[in-house]
Amino acid sequence: MEINYLELVSIKQVNVERIDGTAISSFLDTLSIEEPLEIRISYGSKTERIQKNISVTMRTPGNDVELAIGFLFTEGIINSFENIKASYPVKMDCLSQKQNIVQVDLQENFSPNIMQTDRNFYTTSSCGVCGKSSIQSIKTVSPFAHLAKSNIRINASLFYQLPEKLRMAQSDFASTGGLHASGLFNIQGDLILLSEDVGRHNALDKLIGKSLINKSLPLNEHILLLSGRASFELIQKAAMAGISIVASIGAPSSLAVELALEFNITLLGFLKENRFNIYSASDQIVIVTH
Amino acid sequence: MEINYLELVSIKQVNVERIDGTAISSFLDTLSIEEPLEIRISYGSKTERIQKNISVTMRTPGNDVELAIGFLFTEGIINSFENIKASYPVKMDCLSQKQNIVQVDLQENFSPNIMQTDRNFYTTSSCGVCGKSSIQSIKTVSPFAHLAKSNIRINASLFYQLPEKLRMAQSDFASTGGLHASGLFNIQGDLILLSEDVGRHNALDKLIGKSLINKSLPLNEHILLLSGRASFELIQKAAMAGISIVASIGAPSSLAVELALEFNITLLGFLKENRFNIYSASDQIVIVTH
Repeated sequence: MEINYLELVSIKQVNVERIDGTAISSFLDTLSIEEPLEIRISYGSKTERIQKNISVTMRTPGNDVELAIGFLFTEGIINSFENIKASYPVKMDCLSQKQNIVQVDLQENFSPNIMQTDRNFYTTSSCGVCGKSSIQSIKTVSPFAHLAKSNIRINASLFYQLPEKLRMAQSDFASTGGLHASGLFNIQGDLILLSEDVGRHNALDKLIGKSLINKSLPLNEHILLLSGRASFELIQKAAMAGISIVASIGAPSSLAVELALEFNITLLGFLKENRFNIYSASDQIVIVTH
Repeated sequence: MEINYLELVSIKQVNVERIDGTAISSFLDTLSIEEPLEIRISYGSKTERIQKNISVTMRTPGNDVELAIGFLFTEGIINSFENIKASYPVKMDCLSQKQNIVQVDLQENFSPNIMQTDRNFYTTSSCGVCGKSSIQSIKTVSPFAHLAKSNIRINASLFYQLPEKLRMAQSDFASTGGLHASGLFNIQGDLILLSEDVGRHNALDKLIGKSLINKSLPLNEHILLLSGRASFELIQKAAMAGISIVASIGAPSSLAVELALEFNITLLGFLKENRFNIYSASDQIVIVTH
């Protein structure tokens, strides 16, 4: 099994002063790189193209096209990879020469859902702004909201091993807290895709963007492992990709659990080497403990 | 010294299954509450008012007005508390009866800077999207960008005590990873303001919003302690509030360090009970180690 590591221009070294007890010393420290990325789309007819800036996100450079495509998909702006005609990084006309823009050209027959751009999922319901309406909006937009879930038999010990597998696949620096990671495992517990970023939503968008490009959605026979906590936003993205099992090393929030219940996603939290909690859809997988 | 705890409707209890080694049991677990908050403003003349939805953020309910005002200020949409005529939570016309909207009415003679709303600081520079232009944009907008910094003499042991003081002031649940915290300390190391949220940017906006309402900005004789990592976004907010010393328990990102250098903010990272690193403006404070 080949693990698909997403490439990353992730670190930078700087001189810092270390104060240790009563001693002061200088040393070279490693930082995670954070830079803005602007996501632009073009759409409309062949003769009349409309350009629109969709979002600026602070991200760790690397897999920018995957990030842009993943973002457009998990925010419901596009519905499938087929909506895309071309996608490419754009170099800025400026001294820094950094490629901090990704341009996504959409097909001529496709109308992107950009009415509410920066808060797509919160203002589409007539009920107003609340957790329930946010969940209902995602149900309306997700192509995989009504996916039939299969009964899967998984040994608890398979879950116990996932955090260590994720850490082993990350670099020393990244695994010690420098970067958030998202890992995609198959039901046998093999790591098949790993992505990292200073922003945990970006790490997940990179992973889902890559999967969309690979035509491997929905991911309903996989386990998604999140290196940190499970927020509403991350479960929203998982739901959009049809992921049926999400495990987080940290705590889930209340709205993350509500969304997981509504989408029949099995949500595990506080996953450690010998324990975890199940917050939703515990009937979907049969946990074998011996 | 009275500590100003910001009130929070922060937790919810749910039934979960715990898998521990080979044992399965049910128990009542505590979750951080996460709910959307919409920030709305009105502006224009007395006879012609314009209503605008500025942002939806996923936050932990509590101190919503402080959060809204802090957000408007740290994003450069308003410049001072005097720009505000009234601010109040709005109950939705829906079954949930939750107050998930804050309305901020601006003064008639004030034009808010909402040209770019969701990406205020990234598109104002002619250079385009890059870390440098993001930093320059903040310099243009921040009322405290050119604040003269004083030389402050601080004992290293004062810093060593801050994380424990923050933890002691948080609830057990929050301090064990349930919520992000921002703590404001004076130069003597006393905690004077504490805020918590599922989103670390929200925790900081609540703290800065409260300080703006109290007319205590700029916070150039204080120490801001961040419970997690220091990202660009958090240092941007600190810079907008004129904070001159930021200490984070986690790692800073590359762009956070660049912004701190540019604003002459002393940025400490990896603050533990007996050590820390200094990433910028180390000449601003004299660290006494014995």
